[in-house]
Amino acid sequence: MKKLIKNGTIVTASDLYEADILIEGEKIAAIGRNLDESAAQVIDAKGAYVFPGGVDPHTHLDMPFGGTVTSDDFETGTIAAAHGGTTTVIDFCLTSKGEPLKNSIQTWHEKSKEKAVIDYGFHLMISEVNDSVLAEIPKIIEEEGITSFKVFMAYKNVFQADDETLFRTLLTAKEHGALVMVHAENGDVIDFLVNKALKEGNTDPIYHALTRPPEVEGEATGRAAQLTGLADSQLYVVHVSCAEAVEKIEEARKKGYQVWGETCPQYLVLDQSYLEKPNFEGAKYVWSPPLREKWNQDVLWNALKNGQLQTLGSDQCSFNFKGQKELGLGDFTKIPNGGPIIEDRFSILFSEGVKKGRISINQFVDIVSTRIAKLFGLFPRKGTIAVGSDADIVIFDPNKERTISAETHHMNVDYSAFEGMKVTGEPISVLSRGEFVIREKEFVGKPGKGQYLKRDRFGSAKKPAEQVR
Amino acid sequence: MKKLIKNGTIVTASDLYEADILIEGEKIAAIGRNLDESAAQVIDAKGAYVFPGGVDPHTHLDMPFGGTVTSDDFETGTIAAAHGGTTTVIDFCLTSKGEPLKNSIQTWHEKSKEKAVIDYGFHLMISEVNDSVLAEIPKIIEEEGITSFKVFMAYKNVFQADDETLFRTLLTAKEHGALVMVHAENGDVIDFLVNKALKEGNTDPIYHALTRPPEVEGEATGRAAQLTGLADSQLYVVHVSCAEAVEKIEEARKKGYQVWGETCPQYLVLDQSYLEKPNFEGAKYVWSPPLREKWNQDVLWNALKNGQLQTLGSDQCSFNFKGQKELGLGDFTKIPNGGPIIEDRFSILFSEGVKKGRISINQFVDIVSTRIAKLFGLFPRKGTIAVGSDADIVIFDPNKERTISAETHHMNVDYSAFEGMKVTGEPISVLSRGEFVIREKEFVGKPGKGQYLKRDRFGSAKKPAEQVR
Amino acid sequence: MKKLIKNGTIVTASDLYEADILIEGEKIAAIGRNLDESAAQVIDAKGAYVFPGGVDPHTHLDMPFGGTVTSDDFETGTIAAAHGGTTTVIDFCLTSKGEPLKNSIQTWHEKSKEKAVIDYGFHLMISEVNDSVLAEIPKIIEEEGITSFKVFMAYKNVFQADDETLFRTLLTAKEHGALVMVHAENGDVIDFLVNKALKEGNTDPIYHALTRPPEVEGEATGRAAQLTGLADSQLYVVHVSCAEAVEKIEEARKKGYQVWGETCPQYLVLDQSYLEKPNFEGAKYVWSPPLREKWNQDVLWNALKNGQLQTLGSDQCSFNFKGQKELGLGDFTKIPNGGPIIEDRFSILFSEGVKKGRISINQFVDIVSTRIAKLFGLFPRKGTIAVGSDADIVIFDPNKERTISAETHHMNVDYSAFEGMKVTGEPISVLSRGEFVIREKEFVGKPGKGQYLKRDRFGSAKKPAEQVR
Amino acid sequence: MKKLIKNGTIVTASDLYEADILIEGEKIAAIGRNLDESAAQVIDAKGAYVFPGGVDPHTHLDMPFGGTVTSDDFETGTIAAAHGGTTTVIDFCLTSKGEPLKNSIQTWHEKSKEKAVIDYGFHLMISEVNDSVLAEIPKIIEEEGITSFKVFMAYKNVFQADDETLFRTLLTAKEHGALVMVHAENGDVIDFLVNKALKEGNTDPIYHALTRPPEVEGEATGRAAQLTGLADSQLYVVHVSCAEAVEKIEEARKKGYQVWGETCPQYLVLDQSYLEKPNFEGAKYVWSPPLREKWNQDVLWNALKNGQLQTLGSDQCSFNFKGQKELGLGDFTKIPNGGPIIEDRFSILFSEGVKKGRISINQFVDIVSTRIAKLFGLFPRKGTIAVGSDADIVIFDPNKERTISAETHHMNVDYSAFEGMKVTGEPISVLSRGEFVIREKEFVGKPGKGQYLKRDRFGSAKKPAEQVR
Repeated sequence: MKKLIKNGTIVTASDLYEADILIEGEKIAAIGRNLDESAAQVIDAKGAYVFPGGVDPHTHLDMPFGGTVTSDDFETGTIAAAHGGTTTVIDFCLTSKGEPLKNSIQTWHEKSKEKAVIDYGFHLMISEVNDSVLAEIPKIIEEEGITSFKVFMAYKNVFQADDETLFRTLLTAKEHGALVMVHAENGDVIDFLVNKALKEGNTDPIYHALTRPPEVEGEATGRAAQLTGLADSQLYVVHVSCAEAVEKIEEARKKGYQVWGETCPQYLVLDQSYLEKPNFEGAKYVWSPPLREKWNQDVLWNALKNGQLQTLGSDQCSFNFKGQKELGLGDFTKIPNGGPIIEDRFSILFSEGVKKGRISINQFVDIVSTRIAKLFGLFPRKGTIAVGSDADIVIFDPNKERTISAETHHMNVDYSAFEGMKVTGEPISVLSRGEFVIREKEFVGKPGKGQYLKRDRFGSAKKPAEQVR
Repeated sequence: MKKLIKNGTIVTASDLYEADILIEGEKIAAIGRNLDESAAQVIDAKGAYVFPGGVDPHTHLDMPFGGTVTSDDFETGTIAAAHGGTTTVIDFCLTSKGEPLKNSIQTWHEKSKEKAVIDYGFHLMISEVNDSVLAEIPKIIEEEGITSFKVFMAYKNVFQADDETLFRTLLTAKEHGALVMVHAENGDVIDFLVNKALKEGNTDPIYHALTRPPEVEGEATGRAAQLTGLADSQLYVVHVSCAEAVEKIEEARKKGYQVWGETCPQYLVLDQSYLEKPNFEGAKYVWSPPLREKWNQDVLWNALKNGQLQTLGSDQCSFNFKGQKELGLGDFTKIPNGGPIIEDRFSILFSEGVKKGRISINQFVDIVSTRIAKLFGLFPRKGTIAVGSDADIVIFDPNKERTISAETHHMNVDYSAFEGMKVTGEPISVLSRGEFVIREKEFVGKPGKGQYLKRDRFGSAKKPAEQVR
Repeated sequence: MKKLIKNGTIVTASDLYEADILIEGEKIAAIGRNLDESAAQVIDAKGAYVFPGGVDPHTHLDMPFGGTVTSDDFETGTIAAAHGGTTTVIDFCLTSKGEPLKNSIQTWHEKSKEKAVIDYGFHLMISEVNDSVLAEIPKIIEEEGITSFKVFMAYKNVFQADDETLFRTLLTAKEHGALVMVHAENGDVIDFLVNKALKEGNTDPIYHALTRPPEVEGEATGRAAQLTGLADSQLYVVHVSCAEAVEKIEEARKKGYQVWGETCPQYLVLDQSYLEKPNFEGAKYVWSPPLREKWNQDVLWNALKNGQLQTLGSDQCSFNFKGQKELGLGDFTKIPNGGPIIEDRFSILFSEGVKKGRISINQFVDIVSTRIAKLFGLFPRKGTIAVGSDADIVIFDPNKERTISAETHHMNVDYSAFEGMKVTGEPISVLSRGEFVIREKEFVGKPGKGQYLKRDRFGSAKKPAEQVR
Repeated sequence: MKKLIKNGTIVTASDLYEADILIEGEKIAAIGRNLDESAAQVIDAKGAYVFPGGVDPHTHLDMPFGGTVTSDDFETGTIAAAHGGTTTVIDFCLTSKGEPLKNSIQTWHEKSKEKAVIDYGFHLMISEVNDSVLAEIPKIIEEEGITSFKVFMAYKNVFQADDETLFRTLLTAKEHGALVMVHAENGDVIDFLVNKALKEGNTDPIYHALTRPPEVEGEATGRAAQLTGLADSQLYVVHVSCAEAVEKIEEARKKGYQVWGETCPQYLVLDQSYLEKPNFEGAKYVWSPPLREKWNQDVLWNALKNGQLQTLGSDQCSFNFKGQKELGLGDFTKIPNGGPIIEDRFSILFSEGVKKGRISINQFVDIVSTRIAKLFGLFPRKGTIAVGSDADIVIFDPNKERTISAETHHMNVDYSAFEGMKVTGEPISVLSRGEFVIREKEFVGKPGKGQYLKRDRFGSAKKPAEQVR
């Protein structure tokens, strides 16, 4: 049955206007005023914004880490995402040295297939580049539609790749049309500082931040950007947290390098002092890179406004405080890194960004959805409200005031990183390919309904002039 | 009668998709696939891009300058603009010290009213700020919808304002919601260098460039940006020509200042060597700021790609070579500054920018239309293809190859600045508020059909969240 | 009679070593160990540093300002200077528009001739550049040995010159071998802000700072530097107070421009909060540019260490609190600008710079003496301890702790800007051309003993290779 | 017997004056005019500059590399150095992983002891940092007076250290008062590019340059600088060759980091095109980092003038063209890296720097001698002409024109990197600790006369105020 979203204010990365949206099947069929209502289910969006569904480029669902597993899997994670206004996630598929990449991907398909309530894709981690990996990559791009590869410059002896691996990945990505993602922190230095801290008996959560100072992020970001320029390739820096890293991205872009940067909600509104909360509560705020001194927030916001950072990811990676975060009692290195963010990414950017005048509402849509879809080969299927696009739509009350809390959130985790934070604006209803997932704040979707997304190659939409005959 | 543009590929500052556009009266009523054709005039756009009409933020039509008058008036100028894909121009209204601003505006209304074939607005030049000017500005914003004011830092003893005037204009603009535009060249230094050149017998056109070196543009740009930051106001730097000026804009934006920059087609594709053409032909290429050394072009393109420059203006200001440019024979200071560009702005950016892969096609629309409409209070009425917007539309063949020439252009001027330049892409038909102005490359509009546009205050659309109840 | 300074540690801008100094007449005749003591007056410098006398490039003695006159004239001012370790001052000779420069210089000769106890030279202020001024400058360089000219970018309608004057001064300086000095603040903006503050009833001393924000200094510094680069001339920026200005100097030097910067003790150790002292005491701390927020101090120190700022001037310009500073009660614009610093420049740089490890002891000598002598055409006559140089020498106890106070200083002014500040290090004895001026902390010189210094042209020592045969 | 150098013009890093120098034994005893000539050997320096002997901070004498050994050992190398005006060299002592550092030092003592004709010290290469290395370092500083340690970021699988090694070396250096030196090129990327080039059959010398692009030097320089800032340690970047690296050093210094940079004569006067010389002659110009595009030379010169680079090393590392460089015929990776420079460093800097007005003559002395002595713990024993310093002196004819050639040079190598280059200025006589090594251009010294120099800890001269009681 057709659906007609009426009376809303449609907002895209560029436009804002009042019109109705006609949905036929999974797609947006028409946008107009006074569209024919007959034979359509009418959804009233009066007083609401109608946004394209959020695209979250950075999630870790059902991921093993440090001897435990993230508390949200593809079911609870995507339900929470949907509640939060996100209709697509791209999750990181881990790989193991020496094993065919395909096997890892297969594992990830198994984790997600029956569970996801919204559409999803995978990034693939690259831990080594040898002949067999090089031979497999083009096939994976072609067959799996995985067109982004992540390299870690940190987590020595675990995920950390050397510069040659990064450089070859960049060259390979260029050749085959993929985007390289990088976790930019100097793992060698961190490893040393961490061991030193432990040796000195400094085991509290705050030492997680103190052993990963902003200089190591700035250094690695600059290094990755420079290798990208040299390779004439394309780079996406995940979870940019500080001024030092922003500077390096700006410099690279000024030189004409193709470098983009993602930040995360936690870096925009929380700061390093949270790691000093008593009773081991600081452990809740352990991310890598860590939360920074508060003044960095202004730098990040200005970079978003300025276009020097382009996207917002959640870096969703939830662990319960009880039993999981607590693994790090007496040793901060045992605290699983990460936190529950997937549900709050959209609302926090709206409330702190748009409502507080830091970014425009069109920038909001671009940052939370459109640009991500474009960079990762999902556009225009995802990331916009336009005729022919998937009807992934968020009906959003911009004036609803509410308080974020673990008591009310839908993630499968026993605390909220933003507990008590007041935000303005709330997703009321969310559609995925034309079907309600959230309706009047209630989950009405179904695990397994989410589809795996084969993504286009990077830059495949780059010369669109040619597409028209 | 309704119109239906079928089978085209619609492109906005963010989207690209295939759909049909239904126009009712002056407005876009619906966008969709398989829209009802009955009772509508069908326009086939198969194989074409359907762009929002260009908005040219920088024209000088029917303007007196140095004892002569630009050869294009509001009739020939806007006809040429329409041929070139532009459906809105914002023209600079000159003022005189000591005279009420209203009088000047009245003069400009008289120049344009019966002649314009497309819609138009005015910027107002500010040559002094005194109590009477300060008292008049709010009225002009309110009554005339003129919400941008231009200050000249060059043309000593003619247009040049001092820093206090610039600073007070910035403060006034902030208070009343207007955007300050600045011609950024250090007029004091230029004046000295010009006199020195003349004294030394250096009278050829090339001395126009040599007496306005990039340092004077960089300096003035930096100065204006810094005063803007101090005033916490907003600045639009017109006709940015060189690396020195781009750097200053970047620095300002990095500090969070609200500074935007416009460049022009001539700076993107021509260079200083043109001023050395023999037989006084160099005079055809006399702009202020002047054409620069070729390497600056890369800097400008990268700044557009990067978002550090945001718009493209034509700085249309045409003078015939015979009888007008020739006034400067034997004395380059007598060469009227400016050239005929209004018709080529849109096509050159498409051909050199999109076709050559320097910018994306969405950036193209943003730079040539959307962002300008937003900055100057015309959005979403102008600058996009969205339901409710004016049906200002360009149907554009992206693959048509042609050669720019004075023989075929529609401007009332005896030469082309781009004579012989090959471009790919051509506007086929152009609609203004739902009516054809150009149909299959033929002008079918009518002088006087263009309407004067009262523009919104700067930033009035800034907190859109509030607009929705 | 010869003098022999024994057992001291000689320090120059490059060296540090133990040796004795033999003085014959006005000059240093030999440096060595075990020099022949016979027929020489022996001065024991055991445990002391033996420094070249300080050169203060920036004093205003006996200068009319705002209806009053500085409280220190060439007698009290130079006595205080000598107590403080300074053996040469270069004072600013004011000029008046329309009057021959020579007349002003004559006035300055009359002020100083009978009074100075140490050697002195003049800079000349340039308030306008016309044919008669241009004709006079080469003569003044030749006949008076005045080889530095100062241009004010602030003090609108009083000293302020326009950009053409600055630019022509730069060109003239280049041609004739002089150094242009600039007071870099945007006078237009200041003038407006000051009037606005007064209109709003903001008359307290702190408004002096608030109406001259760092942006106006940064802007003007950048402007002057850019004009210098364009003129391929040389520039000395006086009294650099803030990060904004330092940045501009760095940028200019990076481009290869010949730009140097001077800071002053007050900017290194005092900050803007001093202007808020109660009971109008803030008036004591009124300088232009004003004291800045404290964090700027680190930037200035680092720039000195780094070589991006090169000299320290006192900007001595003393006014009594009673009767002079008080002129500004109820109107901060009436507070005479300036303060008493001449006596403390040397000691503060030693104590805060060398003793606190911010700069090396050789840098100290360079900053307080040698580099100034070089830039202003006094080297090697002044500015070093070397055979053949004037015996201008400071015997300095580096470990003496003392407190700066108006009760003990020798300036003719009723307060100290550094009242209560503890410093380590004190000049014990000071010689000027071989004669004691200060002996064991007692003044033993005589007014009129100081000689007027004709200075070499800028860069005359630049190609020294040629000097040798 | 005493010596008296008469009538010369003495030049130090700060001073220039005419005076005589009295030498007693190994030391400078006095400087003056009309010193007592009796009982002294008089050396006439009329018309000459009298400079402190050059200190070369970067030599590789008798060093094994790639299966061969440098053609100059401590005898021929130091004789050539002396001819060229250098009286001290600091040579790099290689070490091997797993072997005690002491053993390597012993080897180097054996190489040098009987051979050196001038004084010399050692830097020590650090290839790994483990507990036994950490335990040995303080002893080596204490016992051997080796206070500088070099880390290679290039030469993968040979010398290359990882970031942890670099970081720990920086921390250790800070703790014990040593200076860390770094060869800054990203070895991982180079290794890949080299293998790729070989695989593609690109074996000519020019591929040496093309596989080590400036980006890899810029990247590594920035990385090392950032780790230095983080460690609050001190860094000396050897052989800076390009703009990219200079920028990183400037940035670091602007942040207050203690980072210094050395460039080499080859980078100042030769360029990448030399590697394309026919008949395999390009091999003569194979250095790492490689010669760069010519425009980099201006950047390097300006950085020296500006103080952003501080020293000049030769990176002496000579291999005969016949039999040694030729090892790389058909495979550029087999060309031994390095060239013969030790003899020309001093003259080239004088001729191209001072004579051409790029740097002052005082800067020349600082760059070629004084600053090096200060950074490496040899000052004031070496590096200046001052009472008490070693009488290491160069009598230099500044106007002698000559042509550099392998036919006339004294290095034990069959070509000159500067063959045919005209320079102005030549060392006439050279003294080492009061004894002639070169007299009227003839070598009159003796192998074994050169002494090993135990050097002071870094920064031991930093708080000189304390030194004086």
